[in-house]
Amino acid sequence: MPTHNPFTNPAPRGHLDGDFLREEVVLANRNHGALLEALRHDVTPAGLHYLLNHFDVPYVPDAAAWRLAVGGNVITPLSLSVAQIKALPQRTLRVTLECAGNGRGQVTPRWPSMPWMAEAVGTSDWTGTPLKSVLEMAGMQPDTADIAFTGIDRGFDKGDEHAYGRSLTPGLALSDDVLLVTAMNGQPLLPQHGFPLRLIVPGWYGMASVKWLDRIEALTRPYQGYQQVKTYMFKARPEDRGVPITTIRVKSLMVPPGMPDWYTRQRLVEAGPVMVFGRAWSGNGVPIAKVEVSVNGVWSAARLDAPSGRYAWRGWTFDWVATKGEFVVACRAMDAEGATQPLDVPFDRGGFGNNAVQRVQVTVR
Amino acid sequence: MPTHNPFTNPAPRGHLDGDFLREEVVLANRNHGALLEALRHDVTPAGLHYLLNHFDVPYVPDAAAWRLAVGGNVITPLSLSVAQIKALPQRTLRVTLECAGNGRGQVTPRWPSMPWMAEAVGTSDWTGTPLKSVLEMAGMQPDTADIAFTGIDRGFDKGDEHAYGRSLTPGLALSDDVLLVTAMNGQPLLPQHGFPLRLIVPGWYGMASVKWLDRIEALTRPYQGYQQVKTYMFKARPEDRGVPITTIRVKSLMVPPGMPDWYTRQRLVEAGPVMVFGRAWSGNGVPIAKVEVSVNGVWSAARLDAPSGRYAWRGWTFDWVATKGEFVVACRAMDAEGATQPLDVPFDRGGFGNNAVQRVQVTVR
Repeated sequence: MPTHNPFTNPAPRGHLDGDFLREEVVLANRNHGALLEALRHDVTPAGLHYLLNHFDVPYVPDAAAWRLAVGGNVITPLSLSVAQIKALPQRTLRVTLECAGNGRGQVTPRWPSMPWMAEAVGTSDWTGTPLKSVLEMAGMQPDTADIAFTGIDRGFDKGDEHAYGRSLTPGLALSDDVLLVTAMNGQPLLPQHGFPLRLIVPGWYGMASVKWLDRIEALTRPYQGYQQVKTYMFKARPEDRGVPITTIRVKSLMVPPGMPDWYTRQRLVEAGPVMVFGRAWSGNGVPIAKVEVSVNGVWSAARLDAPSGRYAWRGWTFDWVATKGEFVVACRAMDAEGATQPLDVPFDRGGFGNNAVQRVQVTVR
Repeated sequence: MPTHNPFTNPAPRGHLDGDFLREEVVLANRNHGALLEALRHDVTPAGLHYLLNHFDVPYVPDAAAWRLAVGGNVITPLSLSVAQIKALPQRTLRVTLECAGNGRGQVTPRWPSMPWMAEAVGTSDWTGTPLKSVLEMAGMQPDTADIAFTGIDRGFDKGDEHAYGRSLTPGLALSDDVLLVTAMNGQPLLPQHGFPLRLIVPGWYGMASVKWLDRIEALTRPYQGYQQVKTYMFKARPEDRGVPITTIRVKSLMVPPGMPDWYTRQRLVEAGPVMVFGRAWSGNGVPIAKVEVSVNGVWSAARLDAPSGRYAWRGWTFDWVATKGEFVVACRAMDAEGATQPLDVPFDRGGFGNNAVQRVQVTVR
C-alpha cells in the first residue's frame, strides 16, 4: 500500500514558488480558459468559455429521465422534469462568469491547484426559469436559513467524498435573476456546461452556479458541504476561519494587440495607430465606471462601449499611437462603487480573487 | 533593450526534466484537450475536441467576404467564395484528429512546448467539398511537385515570422478524402476550429489540417514553410535532418473508471463488475485489429465495437471484476498492419508521436 492515497490519506500539499507541478499541468490540460482574443466576441462562442470542473463531466444520455428534487424544509416536496421546469416562464440573461481561482498561477507563493493565469472568464446568454418560481411552487418553510444545490458530479477532495454542492441564502435564491438554466446562447447546454440543468447565479464567481443540478434542499441551518465551507474561502493565514467567496471583484482584460510569438506569447505590433480593446466587469450587478490603459506606466482613460446587460462585461477601446520600442500595456477598471483593480497581485492562500491588472509585453517595430 | 526578444533574438530553449515552466502552463491554459470522459461520445461534443492553435484565433466577422485563392503552378488561378465551394458536391466524413505533440508532457527529457499528457484527440463529422474538385477546377500543371495550404493565422516561432502553412503531395491532395470543410458536426465551424474554411486531412496528425484556409498554391518544388520543414519532424539527435511527421500512430485511450480525486486525478472504483471502455485509432485509414487491457500487468483482449468509419476511432469494452486493492489499468491497441503501442514512452526531441500505453491508477474499495 502506498503511504499516501488521495481517498483515505491524501499527501499534504504546500505552497510553491516558481515552476509548476505535473498535477497543475494535468488540471490545466483538462480545464480551459477563454483564449484572450475571444474577448472580441460580445458573447463567447461555444468551446471558448472557460471551463472548471472539479470532477468528471457526467454523461447524461437521456435528459427526459432527469428529475430535479426539491425537498427538505419545504411545504410541498417536488420532483420536476426538465420539461416541467421549461414550461414555467423563461428569462434570458447575459452573464459574465469568472472562476474564483482566476489568476491563481500569478499568486506568490502559489497554492497547487488549477493554475489559471488570466483567462478563466466568459459571457453567455443563459436561458432558464427563475429559481424563484420553483421555490415558490415548493413553498419554503419560514424558518428556512439556507438552500443547498447539489449536482450529480461526484468525487474526492482532500479525502472528502462528496457530490458538488453549494448553497444560497433564501434572499438571494428568491431574487428574480437566479436561473435554472437549460440553454446557453440559444442552444441546449453542452455536457461540460451542465446538461441538462444548471444554476446560474449572476454576479457571483462561477462556483455558485452548480452544474448537473438534481437536488435542491431547504435547510434550517447553514449548509456544511465541502465546496461551501472547506474551500472557496479567502484566507491570508492557515489559522484563519476564512471569508466566504461570493461576488466577482472588478476586473478588466484586453485582447493582446498585434501578433504573438508561439512560445512566449509576447506580442509584436506595427508602429502606427493601434486600437487596444477589451472587456471590463464587476460583480453583483455593479456597473463599470471607468477603464484606464497604461502604456509603460502612463495611465489614460479608455472609452466605454454601451453596457450590454447588468451582469455582462462591458467593452472598452483605447487609441494608441505605437512607436518603435518595447512596451508594457496594462488595463484597469473601476466600478460604480469605487472598487479598483490593484496593481499588485493580492495574496490569498488558495489563490482566489486575483483581480490585479493585466500586463502585456509588446514589441513595436 | 532586453538581450532576448522572441521576434529578433529568441532565448535558446533546452530540454527539461521534472517540473514545468510558466510558458508551458500558459500554453496548456490556452490550448485544451478532450476531457478523457468525453471519449464516451462517438462524436466529440462542441468544446471538448482538442484544440491546438499556434497563433491567435483569427476574427472573421464576415464569412461572405472570404476568398480562397488557388494559384501558383495552375492552369486557371481561382478566387472562390465559401458559397462557391459549398455549391460543389459535398461529403461528410467522421474523422479522428490527434495532435502530433500529444503525450509530449510524458517524454523525458521534455521539449518545452504545449505539455499534452494524453488528451489531444477528438472525433467529428466534418462536412465539406473534396479538395480534388477545386484542384481539378484550377488544373494543376503536370510538373507540380507540392501543394501549399496557408491560413490567415500569423505569428512568430523561433524568430521566424509566418502565416501557418503546410503542404501535401499532389497524390494525397487529389485523393477523394481530403476535404475543404465548412461544417463540424452539422454546425458551421467554430472560430477556433477554422471558421469559415479549413482543410481536413484524414488519417494524418492534426498539423496537416490547416485552419482559416485562404490560399492554395501549386509549387514545382517542395514547400519550405516553417511548419513544414522547421518543426513537425521526428528527431532523435540535434544534428538529425529529421523525419517528417505524417500519419497518426496507433493508439488507444480509456475513459478512466470510477470517480476522481480533484487534485491527483487518481480514481476510486467500487469493488464488483466494472466496464472499462474507450477508443482506439490508427492513421492513414488503417483499421484497428486488437485492443488489450492490462490490470496490474496481466493483459486480456477487449471487445471491439463495430467500426464507425475508416478514419474514426473504434470503441472497445472490457469487463473487469474489481477486487479491493490498488491497481494500474492500462490499454493498448494493435492495427491491421501489426503496429502496436509501445509500453514505454518513445523519445523524440520535440516530444512528437508519443503513443505509449495509457496507465490509470485505480483504488478499489
